[in-house]
Amino acid sequence: MLHGFVELRNFVFIMQLSETITSTQNPKIKALMQLQQKSASRRQQRLFVVEGRRELMHCLSCGYLADTVFLCPDILRAESEYDSLMTSLPRCNVVQVSPNIYGRIAYRSGTEGVVAIMHMKEHGLDTLPVPDAGHAPLYVVLESVEKPGNLGAILRSADAAGVDALIVCDPLTDLYNPNLIRASLGGLFSVPTVVCTGEECIRHLQDNGIRILTAQLQDSKLYYDTDMTLPTAIVMGTEATGLTPQWRRAADAHIRIPMLGILDSLNVSVSAAILMFEAVRQRQG
Amino acid sequence: MLHGFVELRNFVFIMQLSETITSTQNPKIKALMQLQQKSASRRQQRLFVVEGRRELMHCLSCGYLADTVFLCPDILRAESEYDSLMTSLPRCNVVQVSPNIYGRIAYRSGTEGVVAIMHMKEHGLDTLPVPDAGHAPLYVVLESVEKPGNLGAILRSADAAGVDALIVCDPLTDLYNPNLIRASLGGLFSVPTVVCTGEECIRHLQDNGIRILTAQLQDSKLYYDTDMTLPTAIVMGTEATGLTPQWRRAADAHIRIPMLGILDSLNVSVSAAILMFEAVRQRQG
Repeated sequence: MLHGFVELRNFVFIMQLSETITSTQNPKIKALMQLQQKSASRRQQRLFVVEGRRELMHCLSCGYLADTVFLCPDILRAESEYDSLMTSLPRCNVVQVSPNIYGRIAYRSGTEGVVAIMHMKEHGLDTLPVPDAGHAPLYVVLESVEKPGNLGAILRSADAAGVDALIVCDPLTDLYNPNLIRASLGGLFSVPTVVCTGEECIRHLQDNGIRILTAQLQDSKLYYDTDMTLPTAIVMGTEATGLTPQWRRAADAHIRIPMLGILDSLNVSVSAAILMFEAVRQRQG
Repeated sequence: MLHGFVELRNFVFIMQLSETITSTQNPKIKALMQLQQKSASRRQQRLFVVEGRRELMHCLSCGYLADTVFLCPDILRAESEYDSLMTSLPRCNVVQVSPNIYGRIAYRSGTEGVVAIMHMKEHGLDTLPVPDAGHAPLYVVLESVEKPGNLGAILRSADAAGVDALIVCDPLTDLYNPNLIRASLGGLFSVPTVVCTGEECIRHLQDNGIRILTAQLQDSKLYYDTDMTLPTAIVMGTEATGLTPQWRRAADAHIRIPMLGILDSLNVSVSAAILMFEAVRQRQG
């Protein structure tokens, strides 16, 4: 059954219910598909798409607001799930779709009959935690990103490592790419993530006394011989080309992961995880 | 130009040259495609396929033998590359294909005009390094593998960490899946990799005094508080279901990676890398 009024955290929200959509020509479906497929549409409208109950729940629990939720009651496993989903949703448009339409708007299997358009949140450098008496922040900085899946994987690990911020120095990055969101498993929502230029980032780190550790082979020491208990930014370049000179010059220390076999590099998301969890070890150990 | 005789490591090999193939109906092309697509064909013939100059070179340098090499001279970037490739190949069949055929047998871009059928190598538990006065082996054991890409990624990291062996306790695993080979970037060839049952593996570890550290949440201690300088096997289950009871019972210690955010797990290849490199740190530190 549908709820006209839903109580959530002591507030009463009015849900705007609608008919069941059965055509891909419906304007709401067309708008949704454009947001799924076009980075420019997402940027322009400040909206993005999540798919599946779990992804939606992570997103809501991290304070994101829903714009429109598309539900397929025939696919939601049980009415109790439908009810519990409904009671989690703050004020937003709720649209019912037929199983046929759901098959067109859902890219993954097992997403339990729900796709939602969400409002983006803005994170600026000035919103990030800075060093104080009680806390030495740990940032991860990526100079640019080759694949959305890699950035998503890094966000998943960053959540687990309790990283305070992830900064991507590549103004063209589309944080709300569906592959990135999926690979992050919710890490995009829980880890404050900022996109800015390298100059802006270096200035922010230096102004706030955050040590810059660049991952690079040349003139480097082993990562586990480097102090990461101070306010620290771990900075990584691409697998193919590494870091640009501005970062090497700005570095307080160069760190490397030893390569003991025949290969000459690790996957960037694996390297990032090894370095983040060394910081965790040093800080908790 | 083609070489009828190729000198390699002081031996003279006779290369069997052939016409340029221009049809996918050619029996050699059909046999190649079957090996690319069918795990059962690979297992039955003890042959597998590598693609690209780099993958082939890693494979040859780790002692694998080529059966048939398919070259597209029009795609090899320069004649000097062609010559240098030729001089690296021990005795095998060399087949030239047209650019059109190469486009059908190559799955990836940028693989420089070479695809090869290789002979499998057998690794048994009895061929793995065991503890001695000079060396405490480090094994990684995976109880089963959800995705070939994940196993490939773990092999890439295992190469970098100098792991002595990777054991997969799942007799259905196809080590020579093309996606696994690609993701391993050559790690499959450099890291001795054994497929066996869990019982066989546990017996091998216990008989050889190799400590069993199982990655699991219950009754566990933090991984960095666990000694990994002794002969050690790091044992991991699947992301979805974890380890089976036989491993939990056989364990000398249970270890966990702390999860400091909102998510409840890491990617299995990321977890494996964090644990392997903690062993590297303890052993080198």
